[in-house]
Amino acid sequence: MQGVLELPDNLAPVQSALFGALRDVERVFDAELESELTPVTDLCAHVERYRGKMLRPTLVLACGLATHERAGNTLDWSELITGGHVTLGAVCEMVHMATLVHDDVLDEADVRRRGKTLNTLHGNEEAVILGDYLIASAYHLCSSLPTTGPSRAIGETSQRMCAGELLQLHNRNNWSLDEETYLEILRGKTGALIATACRLGAEASGAPAPVADAVDEYGLRLGIAFQVQDDLLDLTGDEATVGKSVRKDLDKGKLTYPLIHHLSSASPRDRGVSLELIERATGHRDDGAVRRLVEAIRTTDSLEASRAFAASEVASAKQALSPLTESAPGQLLRLMADAVIDRAF
Amino acid sequence: MQGVLELPDNLAPVQSALFGALRDVERVFDAELESELTPVTDLCAHVERYRGKMLRPTLVLACGLATHERAGNTLDWSELITGGHVTLGAVCEMVHMATLVHDDVLDEADVRRRGKTLNTLHGNEEAVILGDYLIASAYHLCSSLPTTGPSRAIGETSQRMCAGELLQLHNRNNWSLDEETYLEILRGKTGALIATACRLGAEASGAPAPVADAVDEYGLRLGIAFQVQDDLLDLTGDEATVGKSVRKDLDKGKLTYPLIHHLSSASPRDRGVSLELIERATGHRDDGAVRRLVEAIRTTDSLEASRAFAASEVASAKQALSPLTESAPGQLLRLMADAVIDRAF
Repeated sequence: MQGVLELPDNLAPVQSALFGALRDVERVFDAELESELTPVTDLCAHVERYRGKMLRPTLVLACGLATHERAGNTLDWSELITGGHVTLGAVCEMVHMATLVHDDVLDEADVRRRGKTLNTLHGNEEAVILGDYLIASAYHLCSSLPTTGPSRAIGETSQRMCAGELLQLHNRNNWSLDEETYLEILRGKTGALIATACRLGAEASGAPAPVADAVDEYGLRLGIAFQVQDDLLDLTGDEATVGKSVRKDLDKGKLTYPLIHHLSSASPRDRGVSLELIERATGHRDDGAVRRLVEAIRTTDSLEASRAFAASEVASAKQALSPLTESAPGQLLRLMADAVIDRAF
Repeated sequence: MQGVLELPDNLAPVQSALFGALRDVERVFDAELESELTPVTDLCAHVERYRGKMLRPTLVLACGLATHERAGNTLDWSELITGGHVTLGAVCEMVHMATLVHDDVLDEADVRRRGKTLNTLHGNEEAVILGDYLIASAYHLCSSLPTTGPSRAIGETSQRMCAGELLQLHNRNNWSLDEETYLEILRGKTGALIATACRLGAEASGAPAPVADAVDEYGLRLGIAFQVQDDLLDLTGDEATVGKSVRKDLDKGKLTYPLIHHLSSASPRDRGVSLELIERATGHRDDGAVRRLVEAIRTTDSLEASRAFAASEVASAKQALSPLTESAPGQLLRLMADAVIDRAF
């Protein structure tokens, strides 16, 4: 969204309403994290560096608009955005940030594995507590809404995110990881919260169940496409970054979509060679091995297969929106889905 | 409670109702953590080792009984315990366990600091995710209740627990930590959840606000007394454990009530000697220094002062119950408060 998407002129009013509401989301977000305790305030200031594209709040708001019964004939879009939408946007962003902060713990652990000294400990502990504080704040904020439905959805979504994270942890260094298990990981880690953001936005607009289900499916597919595109960018970014990016995932013992496709479609001999390259890339941080691995991946058309898969998820995401009335925000949701695989950053 | 307290005969019916309800709490707890994913099930099995005295669920239930309008003239206590009480008991225990699990991350960090190899990393990461899963499950379960009030209270309590944890982290290795800041830490880390358990039990029984406030205050005081008694037991347990226990807190750079009292009441010269002993105990794991430190603590009557403080908190806890109607479960709450400082384990 924010400056990333080139939008046709007819979407300018929708975009303007979303920008205004996103500023409200930020205000609600900051107010919830305010504390009288200096250490808490100091720590929350660090949260700023995690501020991203606000994808989840944008989806709460855009789905809220696209599923509204007045979506077809509205002049002032900001009228349709309620305090509930804004609160839910802030909640989803807070849950997302909590996972980013706790991912840091795993990353810092990784840094230590490479032999760095242990003065990162303090940061590690702060990350655990800051993540806990963010998730507590998300639940506290969510339960300020009049009904328990959103709290229940956010609780369940958090459970599914943890389950996905755990499944990934248990498959670390498993070079036989299959595509179905990888997608199960993505549905939990990335898809669940994006799907819930879309659903909650629709429910806050009073959308009927089939419409809420539709945007849930849209969000799930969009999340999966988003992650596979990330996997691809790790491999196909400019030369200088390729080595680093591949090493980052491999160093954590995590296979991504293109590698899983490659290992499952290579000949037994080539698979053996690639596995040896993976081991060397993982264990010895061997840049030459990484480069040869990327070349090997190209031989099995695994980049094309990954692109095709991401594109098919985007198509499914857009297809899922068919129960919605045609509207400007619905058009925006389709453009956002396209943008997921068109981006090169 | 469970076999720990010697109760007078007239409390047998209350005790029996509580035991039955605690079994229900365990069933609800286990059902919430069930998952189709093997890695999740495996990890949740580890949770068993954190099962403790079920203090918080017991307080939810006992406060639910003691504040019930029929508490004065009831024959069948189990009639007064609702599904809501049971759910809240499981929620409070789950939040408590999540904090124990995340404390493990800090503890494992500590083990590494002493030079152990890094194969504990996997455990560290699992602990982060398991803690997150427990807290997500607690919120999910809590929002199954008909109103948002309990979710809001649990969210806010979790925020306060994190703030206490953070305050402690920021005062690590601060040998000038004063009593008021230490109590602020305890109110967050230990007091807040116990107070909320009591309050939610009362509210689930339909208690009026002053009565809910009364048991909240009872729980807060009880929690603080509980922690200061823990501090004392670390120092005054049998000789074999003293060194280890003192070293455990000192190694993490955490001062406890008796040490704070000692450092603030010793003469400047004696304080200097004790600080040197603390540095040696912390940095060099010097058992002789630990023994001499305990002797120094005795010279300032700091053990007696700690006992007196814990006793005064217990007295305040019991005093706080005065708005409640006299009843058998009210008597039980008073006995539980006494037991906090009578225990030697």
